[in-house]
Amino acid sequence: MPKRRYAIIGTGAVGGFYGARLARAGREVHFLLRSDFDHVREHGLVVESPQGDFVLPTVNACADPRDLPPADVAVVALKATRNHLLPALLPPAVADGGAVLLLQNGLGAEEKIAEIVPGRGVVGGLCFLCSNKVGPGHIRHLDYGFVTLGEFSPAGRPAGVTETMRAIAADLEAAGIEIHLAEDLVLARWKKLVWNVPFNGLSVVLDAMIDELMADEHTRGLAEALMREVAAAAGAVGRPIGDDFIRHMLDLTARMTPYRTSMKIDCERKQPMEVEAIFGEPLRAARRAGADCPRIEALYRQLKFIDARNLAAANPPAGGAA
Amino acid sequence: MPKRRYAIIGTGAVGGFYGARLARAGREVHFLLRSDFDHVREHGLVVESPQGDFVLPTVNACADPRDLPPADVAVVALKATRNHLLPALLPPAVADGGAVLLLQNGLGAEEKIAEIVPGRGVVGGLCFLCSNKVGPGHIRHLDYGFVTLGEFSPAGRPAGVTETMRAIAADLEAAGIEIHLAEDLVLARWKKLVWNVPFNGLSVVLDAMIDELMADEHTRGLAEALMREVAAAAGAVGRPIGDDFIRHMLDLTARMTPYRTSMKIDCERKQPMEVEAIFGEPLRAARRAGADCPRIEALYRQLKFIDARNLAAANPPAGGAA
Repeated sequence: MPKRRYAIIGTGAVGGFYGARLARAGREVHFLLRSDFDHVREHGLVVESPQGDFVLPTVNACADPRDLPPADVAVVALKATRNHLLPALLPPAVADGGAVLLLQNGLGAEEKIAEIVPGRGVVGGLCFLCSNKVGPGHIRHLDYGFVTLGEFSPAGRPAGVTETMRAIAADLEAAGIEIHLAEDLVLARWKKLVWNVPFNGLSVVLDAMIDELMADEHTRGLAEALMREVAAAAGAVGRPIGDDFIRHMLDLTARMTPYRTSMKIDCERKQPMEVEAIFGEPLRAARRAGADCPRIEALYRQLKFIDARNLAAANPPAGGAA
Repeated sequence: MPKRRYAIIGTGAVGGFYGARLARAGREVHFLLRSDFDHVREHGLVVESPQGDFVLPTVNACADPRDLPPADVAVVALKATRNHLLPALLPPAVADGGAVLLLQNGLGAEEKIAEIVPGRGVVGGLCFLCSNKVGPGHIRHLDYGFVTLGEFSPAGRPAGVTETMRAIAADLEAAGIEIHLAEDLVLARWKKLVWNVPFNGLSVVLDAMIDELMADEHTRGLAEALMREVAAAAGAVGRPIGDDFIRHMLDLTARMTPYRTSMKIDCERKQPMEVEAIFGEPLRAARRAGADCPRIEALYRQLKFIDARNLAAANPPAGGAA
């Protein structure tokens, strides 16, 4: 079987990390870049990692999606706030018979991708990864890195473990990435939200690191209450999540390296935050299913306020200087 | 009838404003001061106000409560976070047969005052006032100023309109202050919380002015949801608050001068915030009555985190310099 060709759409903290690992493992990987294009074409990619630093001095860098050779797997690792670009970026990037791997948090994107590239498999990947982009083409991996894969099923029923999932898993495992295969992508996404909702949200609103939130009894208690609301909403949409999972996530979090969440980094950089993917879509799904999520909704509204203020500060209204 | 003598315990944005108005109206007023004592003894008090600026070049200033002549009305206008000082401050300040007027937000203080000075009347005063202390002995009154008075009743039943309330009201009205007399202090306190819980809390957590919170649909909606939780909790403790009151408060707030709440000012100054009086006590009362207040509780926990971080920053642990 020929080696699969990968396209990385969005070469940031997530796409840069997994793409560089695949390239180091000998896969053919093409990186679509925007602001970092010139730098990466000249200097390649640098990955710092507790699992071993490495440099890829030369990579297949690309600034225009129409220059990508069609890939067997197009990896979408954009921020969810940039998914409106996918109708332009994705069709040239994925070969007939190819698949899309979506490395994003939150809900609702697979449906849109399935409409943009009909007939291709769509696999969701949930990254439990502490990683930041610290400079052009420069990724700093801090902790963890395993990926849970699940295939999208248009009817919303569990797709089971598919051949496409196994093929992608084999490549990522060859690159040293721990892979979990989920029979039910929707359940896997709600499980990821159990962590993302409290910790992305509170880290932004309270301008706090994860370890600070875990060290304070009040915020630790609020995080747990938020986790329970996510689990209750998941139960309402037919994906119950047990209390043992919440305990497990709290334990993992308590042992985590001091870490700024991706949403907090976006906030500090006055970039759009993934509020709709991580909060808005789950809240709307919960509401349709009749679940009440007052704490999540309160946090969502706080984040919407902060996001709007950040965007206003980053894009002041046109007009004379004050 | 001889004119009543007043003692102002806590000469800040609230006590300074009302005390200065009483003194200007000819009442005998003694001001207990701490950090501003030297300045006020020398320069008196300055009040800026849309109702007319004025200066009291000479006031009765006092640094030690034991130097206060016993007053007919001892006005407690400390921050609620300093109420642990009342057992020392209050007994010398109030005459036999006198009364205490508590100008504070939140719940729970009248019970303690009634224990500290048994046999004296305890009147609660709820100030709808936008006022800041901007320098030593320097009060900047921005907007509003009316006071709702209600007498404390140990059994928790409405005390009705009492003679003590009428006497204090007459003095404040002579000083140009609009007074409302409440037959039920507990209901009046919960009504005040309908405003204080959302706007003190959100202004701190979101680092925002009131007009910003009202201009954003998400925070305006969250404020309204918090108001409804306060009203539901009040109903659970037997003091129902109607929807028309919430609408009225939202209308008042929408027309308010751009304003930093007192809790926000405390937060910026890294001073203790009145989190327990305004959030903790009402939450505990609601819980005893079986009411669930998830949004208020979430905000309470966020504020506790911020308050603890502020105090740690203001009082770094002892040890060598970094």
